[in-house]
Amino acid sequence: MSELARGPAVVLLSGGLDSATVLAMARADGYACHALSIDYGQRHGAELLAAARVAAAGGAASHRTVSVNLDAIGGSALTDVSIDVPSAPSAGIPVTYVPARNTVFLAIGLGYAEVLAASAIFVGVNAVDYSGYPDCRPAFIDAFQALAAVATKAGVEGKAPRIEAPLLHLSKADIVRRGQALGVDYGLTVSCYNADPHGRACGQCDACRLRADGFRAADVADPTVYFPA
Amino acid sequence: MSELARGPAVVLLSGGLDSATVLAMARADGYACHALSIDYGQRHGAELLAAARVAAAGGAASHRTVSVNLDAIGGSALTDVSIDVPSAPSAGIPVTYVPARNTVFLAIGLGYAEVLAASAIFVGVNAVDYSGYPDCRPAFIDAFQALAAVATKAGVEGKAPRIEAPLLHLSKADIVRRGQALGVDYGLTVSCYNADPHGRACGQCDACRLRADGFRAADVADPTVYFPA
Repeated sequence: MSELARGPAVVLLSGGLDSATVLAMARADGYACHALSIDYGQRHGAELLAAARVAAAGGAASHRTVSVNLDAIGGSALTDVSIDVPSAPSAGIPVTYVPARNTVFLAIGLGYAEVLAASAIFVGVNAVDYSGYPDCRPAFIDAFQALAAVATKAGVEGKAPRIEAPLLHLSKADIVRRGQALGVDYGLTVSCYNADPHGRACGQCDACRLRADGFRAADVADPTVYFPA
Repeated sequence: MSELARGPAVVLLSGGLDSATVLAMARADGYACHALSIDYGQRHGAELLAAARVAAAGGAASHRTVSVNLDAIGGSALTDVSIDVPSAPSAGIPVTYVPARNTVFLAIGLGYAEVLAASAIFVGVNAVDYSGYPDCRPAFIDAFQALAAVATKAGVEGKAPRIEAPLLHLSKADIVRRGQALGVDYGLTVSCYNADPHGRACGQCDACRLRADGFRAADVADPTVYFPA
């Protein structure tokens, strides 16, 4: 079987650790990976620069960015500068939750899959975020899969793309191990909610903590560069 | 019961005939209507100017526009200037179909509903478009309703907004009659896929034909202004 025998797939690519791993997994599965990044007014724009680097290094067949100004509707610390990103863990759904973010991302991915006649859409949601983010749960992925079956021309023809969430039940350490085995260069990725324009991380936010814990638990060297003290 | 006793609702407002009618229906139902327009790179930008006029005239509590450049993924005559808008009816799904458009619109509406704690999202999909657009069918609305129940914080708390599609089973003539009874000024609306910057219509495209037929069948005076011959 040739390397890309499974045809085109859409890979949602944020520039963070998780989606860089998903890209490597989709490539290893034999898909021609069309990376799709969403510029949603997030304050960590360094992630989008990282996405372009990760797409190139990860052998994506193409990389496009769609902009959607979710800041116009507000409601999250990630898009609204009047809400601070917390530096300590909080109970319940965090203020970094962006309302309906993964619904919007998968909706745009679904449109792109229709244009490409892609058979799969890969998304990097994972178990670590379950408790905090409603749209990182298996029930969400299942409901979006059911929607895809009726929402598009491909769906009507019985060819809806599969929603592939290969990280869904993995810990951060599992993800790091998988990615390392597949040769992902995590030095290119940016996870921090407060990253500076160089992609350097704060080391304080939830995303930084989860990432650092993952490298530590996987016993893999952590290439993250932090702000100067 | 006071006029706006039912609290906030999101109303997707394109500036066309259908959504102007939906706004009037939602207002009559007692909702404080937060109109949401989506600038998705459509060639008929006159629709968005019309949306602002319709929101003001229709008593919307607010009006916001979210931009999402679906032209970056292509695939439709409405967003891709290399695909002509046809001037005669075609069989099957028309080239004016925008892949996953209503999924993207409702996804953004769902995020906005979460921010507003809205109990309903109104959308103007209707029966006349069923045959051509997969995402105008009852099955699509039902699947999105199921998704809304798991996709957001409100859903997790058992308070997902209802997806209200009050035009779903109405003909264009029925829609025009309802709107007229509710005082909608259809002279403010723009439906044409090829509208000029003044909002004047071509009289040739599918949208123009459906609209003109609706006024005729409803026996209501048609205020549409066409291009000079």
